[in-house]
Amino acid sequence: MERMNRRTMLKTMGVLGCATGCLAGGLLPGAGSVLAPEPAMAATSGRFAQKDAPFSWKPHVLDAGVCAPVAYDGYWHQGYGCGYGVFYAIVGMMGEQHGAPYNQFPFTMLEVGKSGISDWGTICGALLGAASAFALFWGRKERDPMVAELFRWYEQTAFPMHDPGTAFKGVGGALPTSVSHSPLCHVSVGRWCQASGFAEKSKERGERCARITADVAVKAIAIMNAKQAGAFAVAHGDPASVTYCGECHNPGKQSPLLKGKMDCTPCHSGSPHTADKFRNHP
Amino acid sequence: MERMNRRTMLKTMGVLGCATGCLAGGLLPGAGSVLAPEPAMAATSGRFAQKDAPFSWKPHVLDAGVCAPVAYDGYWHQGYGCGYGVFYAIVGMMGEQHGAPYNQFPFTMLEVGKSGISDWGTICGALLGAASAFALFWGRKERDPMVAELFRWYEQTAFPMHDPGTAFKGVGGALPTSVSHSPLCHVSVGRWCQASGFAEKSKERGERCARITADVAVKAIAIMNAKQAGAFAVAHGDPASVTYCGECHNPGKQSPLLKGKMDCTPCHSGSPHTADKFRNHP
Repeated sequence: MERMNRRTMLKTMGVLGCATGCLAGGLLPGAGSVLAPEPAMAATSGRFAQKDAPFSWKPHVLDAGVCAPVAYDGYWHQGYGCGYGVFYAIVGMMGEQHGAPYNQFPFTMLEVGKSGISDWGTICGALLGAASAFALFWGRKERDPMVAELFRWYEQTAFPMHDPGTAFKGVGGALPTSVSHSPLCHVSVGRWCQASGFAEKSKERGERCARITADVAVKAIAIMNAKQAGAFAVAHGDPASVTYCGECHNPGKQSPLLKGKMDCTPCHSGSPHTADKFRNHP
Repeated sequence: MERMNRRTMLKTMGVLGCATGCLAGGLLPGAGSVLAPEPAMAATSGRFAQKDAPFSWKPHVLDAGVCAPVAYDGYWHQGYGCGYGVFYAIVGMMGEQHGAPYNQFPFTMLEVGKSGISDWGTICGALLGAASAFALFWGRKERDPMVAELFRWYEQTAFPMHDPGTAFKGVGGALPTSVSHSPLCHVSVGRWCQASGFAEKSKERGERCARITADVAVKAIAIMNAKQAGAFAVAHGDPASVTYCGECHNPGKQSPLLKGKMDCTPCHSGSPHTADKFRNHP
């Protein structure tokens, strides 16, 4: 195991003052990449076998105008929430229009995305529902850029946009909007509640998330339709923070410990949100 | 829409100095709860229909000792990663032992969890794989406490624990451990890289995540087996930070905007990790 004496190197670099638990200050060796994946296969029996070949479901073009209200209604249906709403608006609608294998899926599994995975506030369930749908049709090499386009768009867009009109199920009319700068439910909902003045458990917050369920379904369908037409292109690039932090924390750099693609600013810009809330709470 | 003049209230409360984008300082009305879910149904045709009734798959007791190495191998198999590894170790193994409906699932869909969902570093994919498996068998009322027990255990445990012995696929032997205090891939991997001195793209980091895939599968199976035996009990409670912050940010409190269950300390304790990295980088 090639390793280094971190303390010694820090001393050498003259930055020992940073060796006090500062994540971004860590200095690491630029090690090799993980083992290459095994050659492709599609076993139908034995360990890791599955009924259909990996990522072999055939995608179909969907009408975002038809699917948006389905996503919105899916959010409210039995209280299954955002992940179910987006996933059904994509895979469920293919099932309604094309039958199997789409209509054989146990759709309620996606209720797991509700409120950031069983109420934990991690990934926005609407984004999980869309990314999971992508993964039925495309492996990571093709899927990752599609997911990145969807998540970047989400980070940078003022939500909600969808208007259910008279078909609203929570509250009707216009709602305040906010930009999350994050794919995390905790940050997205928290920012909106503070910007709007509505409580997390308010009908308005539920309506806001139901409309975002439709918004994410529309964008996800646009990405999938473009991919099928051979016209998919990334329109939402990395924010300046990701480029800046990557200069030292990407592979091969002086501190190559960065994992993920999220905008760094919500948690690494010393904002009032991340100040010490346990002593001298502002 | 019952709302309040936030600025006026802040002035009244004498905390206007906090009205500069401080999330935790927001003051909100304690509004009503979201609409109650519609009554249960299990349509087999029409909108929101699905082949099997919601959450109707029958769970089976699994041998964690048998499934752990399957989860570890699943992580490396075709490079599908942590989400696939845990999910196959649970649902895939039920398929190998009991056939349909388990073996009809398109398992590679769970590759979406790799590196925190297509490399984004959000939810740890191993946790996503386990929570998604739970959701095939239990609706949110029964599932949420099971997910909470799994995620709290993950936040508080020093990983990795699993030892593949001579069957290792990345690197063999003991590895450094670290406690994530978070269910997020970005935080879990970042803390381990800093504590261990290994790069995010190192073979050791890949091996660490493969072992955690086995660790999470073992804990998830223990929770599922206990649930089936009617013996499931929460052993890992909320950390002090969640209780403390909830005193003001839970429903009905003065600033009821908190979404999620994550330990608050990683991002809200003014640690060096969340200091301003864009000016005067430590």
